Amino acid sequence: MRGLTQFEIKNSMNTDPRPTLIAAARQFYQMGWMVGTAGNLSARMPDGRFWITASGRSKGQLTTDDFILMTLDTDQDEVYFAPTQPHPHRRPSAETSIHAVIYRLFPDAQACYHIHSIEANLVSRFVISDTLPLPPLEMLKGLGVWEENPQVAMPVFANHLEVSRIASEICDYFKVTIPQVPVLLIRDHGVTVWASSLEDASNYLEIAGYIFRYMVAERKIGMRLG
Amino acid sequence: MRGLTQFEIKNSMNTDPRPTLIAAARQFYQMGWMVGTAGNLSARMPDGRFWITASGRSKGQLTTDDFILMTLDTDQDEVYFAPTQPHPHRRPSAETSIHAVIYRLFPDAQACYHIHSIEANLVSRFVISDTLPLPPLEMLKGLGVWEENPQVAMPVFANHLEVSRIASEICDYFKVTIPQVPVLLIRDHGVTVWASSLEDASNYLEIAGYIFRYMVAERKIGMRLG
Amino acid sequence: MRGLTQFEIKNSMNTDPRPTLIAAARQFYQMGWMVGTAGNLSARMPDGRFWITASGRSKGQLTTDDFILMTLDTDQDEVYFAPTQPHPHRRPSAETSIHAVIYRLFPDAQACYHIHSIEANLVSRFVISDTLPLPPLEMLKGLGVWEENPQVAMPVFANHLEVSRIASEICDYFKVTIPQVPVLLIRDHGVTVWASSLEDASNYLEIAGYIFRYMVAERKIGMRLG
Amino acid sequence: MRGLTQFEIKNSMNTDPRPTLIAAARQFYQMGWMVGTAGNLSARMPDGRFWITASGRSKGQLTTDDFILMTLDTDQDEVYFAPTQPHPHRRPSAETSIHAVIYRLFPDAQACYHIHSIEANLVSRFVISDTLPLPPLEMLKGLGVWEENPQVAMPVFANHLEVSRIASEICDYFKVTIPQVPVLLIRDHGVTVWASSLEDASNYLEIAGYIFRYMVAERKIGMRLG
Repeated sequence: MRGLTQFEIKNSMNTDPRPTLIAAARQFYQMGWMVGTAGNLSARMPDGRFWITASGRSKGQLTTDDFILMTLDTDQDEVYFAPTQPHPHRRPSAETSIHAVIYRLFPDAQACYHIHSIEANLVSRFVISDTLPLPPLEMLKGLGVWEENPQVAMPVFANHLEVSRIASEICDYFKVTIPQVPVLLIRDHGVTVWASSLEDASNYLEIAGYIFRYMVAERKIGMRLG
Repeated sequence: MRGLTQFEIKNSMNTDPRPTLIAAARQFYQMGWMVGTAGNLSARMPDGRFWITASGRSKGQLTTDDFILMTLDTDQDEVYFAPTQPHPHRRPSAETSIHAVIYRLFPDAQACYHIHSIEANLVSRFVISDTLPLPPLEMLKGLGVWEENPQVAMPVFANHLEVSRIASEICDYFKVTIPQVPVLLIRDHGVTVWASSLEDASNYLEIAGYIFRYMVAERKIGMRLG
Repeated sequence: MRGLTQFEIKNSMNTDPRPTLIAAARQFYQMGWMVGTAGNLSARMPDGRFWITASGRSKGQLTTDDFILMTLDTDQDEVYFAPTQPHPHRRPSAETSIHAVIYRLFPDAQACYHIHSIEANLVSRFVISDTLPLPPLEMLKGLGVWEENPQVAMPVFANHLEVSRIASEICDYFKVTIPQVPVLLIRDHGVTVWASSLEDASNYLEIAGYIFRYMVAERKIGMRLG
Repeated sequence: MRGLTQFEIKNSMNTDPRPTLIAAARQFYQMGWMVGTAGNLSARMPDGRFWITASGRSKGQLTTDDFILMTLDTDQDEVYFAPTQPHPHRRPSAETSIHAVIYRLFPDAQACYHIHSIEANLVSRFVISDTLPLPPLEMLKGLGVWEENPQVAMPVFANHLEVSRIASEICDYFKVTIPQVPVLLIRDHGVTVWASSLEDASNYLEIAGYIFRYMVAERKIGMRLG
């Protein structure tokens, strides 16, 4: 958001995030990151509820009907979330629990994007352990890392058929570990970013995608940084 | 199809599938999957006949004139199919026999898409045998596989100059083997998917393409899953 | 051209080929095959003259002013060609001599396209000799090869600073060797196709590009066909 | 610029370069060269001032408000540059000092483009030394190299957190070394080109990108030119 007045910022936060989510999903779909209905995007509203993509829709052709508005209660021990009203023909994304946990863990997060790029899946297999070291690219500045020759690592979570178990492990991990960058991987199961604005969420996802492509290309060449 | 009434569903099945096939072909063409007139798409009508792309047309610029409506008789031992009327200037795809066999084998199939991605051809050479094991990606859920760490394989058929021979071998194989996913490969000759809707056929093709790209990248890296 | 009457075919051959060449150039530019003004496209008219792209224009933004109409005399021993009129602000492509030689060698050729894909340059280095064997892909049918497990090779010419020397070597080679496919490579210097229609020239270039991408990917994997 | 009169050339140099920069940035963004706000483009005006992209904007959606007009004084020992007026909501690119140095070093330079392609970063690691040899591709003609089998090298500068230090090292280097091509690399930090027109700057960047992609592919194959 460029040079908005306080009034405009307040106003824009009250506006409907779905058109921006639709445009972002279409872009990610065209990049091959949301093929065959994969992935899910969400945005938190000022009142604490969040919009999330419905399950099973092609992400290249979303409409405002393809989102579910979810309540979110993060005050209790367990993260509680539910659709604000019944939807006979659509269900919230099967991975809503991950979004709910992200919003609980990071109060500033206003958006959470999850996509399945091929490179995210490949790099999730580059390590057996649960953290992936990133190359020292200038591009890391875009993820908030302002260091010379930065040493940054990203968590890699195990995949489970039951998504709530993934969400629970993410929650436990970040309760004790402060992330260096707002990005996490699930092995064989894509990448998730969070940000304080929809625009930044898109930027972070682009940068994560860039770094993963670099890492895959580096491996193809057989080149390792010293 | 999102939240359609029974009336709408029935109605949509009676409508002309060609505009959707044209849009799908243009998308696949732009992805490099239907270069130089390669590939063919078909859709079955409620009355059992099916529309298929004509031979020798650029798939990026199809019009409704570039399709042939075929009769299909699957009651007899031999699959019988033929154009519903003579077409002086165009012929049905040279691979119509494969589509006919798919419609005969799978009564729920309403669409059958065949394209030539480079990755499909590459992975068809990854095995000498007639089945290709797939990596355990979360993305397999989109092909109907809901398992933790799934073990899935896809059939690879031999290529023959005479397409009816390929069709015949596909027919023989699936008469005794239930497919784990609605996808098959012909060695050096692309990938074929079938689905109960045009939308799902596109989704399946996207997911198959994703998995093949992953497998090729995995090989480029020299990485093998344990 | 689909189902045109004799009148329409005759008429279309008299029409201006430049709009089709402009559209083809824009597509190839977007595919990364004509970056930074590289490459050149031409089309022969029924009267024997041919239109060719002017030198130094961005191929993503050609206009009808960016073409030169060339005379061509193939009756003499030496191929003779020249602009039909002076052009103070533009010159015909520096590689016009190659197009002229193609039109002289192949009387049916109505179009000649030359582009610089990365893969064309890479595969031109796969062999030290002057012919490159192609993989036995089904896609070869689109170049006119209807054989089971086809064994096809493509000529690779040496690059020279003086383009007329390249043209001369192409002429000498094809005077004694009938091409298996209407495609040739110049080492480090892209691919050239010719065809009896603009539409086929595009198709051939797409197929050549597909085959080269396959060959490069095959090498990246370290896979060799038996 | 094709066949403009002296009046038109003079006039076009007085016109606003920002629409052309916006279009170029959108194209580079779509190519993955300016992801997540990365990179910066500038153009020098006839009066010596130059427009440069503001910091932190998505390069796919620039508007004329996303540029800062900078004064430039190259007469003194130190390159001096500053915004022509205060901008409460935006800052000039953090890498403006590099652009200023380029305009000081090369009086003919009217445009300077800096982007972060993955391949630029990869090839910047192909050598430990400060020059990168380029392959002898015909495409080098587009960068002004008209030689048979050309031997060309490109400088690779070290990356520093403090950008002015990079700029200073670029300045020192080119004071004693005449560049063979108007392109430089910063290790892990993208590629920079300069040219006497906006159109040529785009062409040079395309050609540099092409050469880097070729070099990366060549390494993936394990192929080295003799």
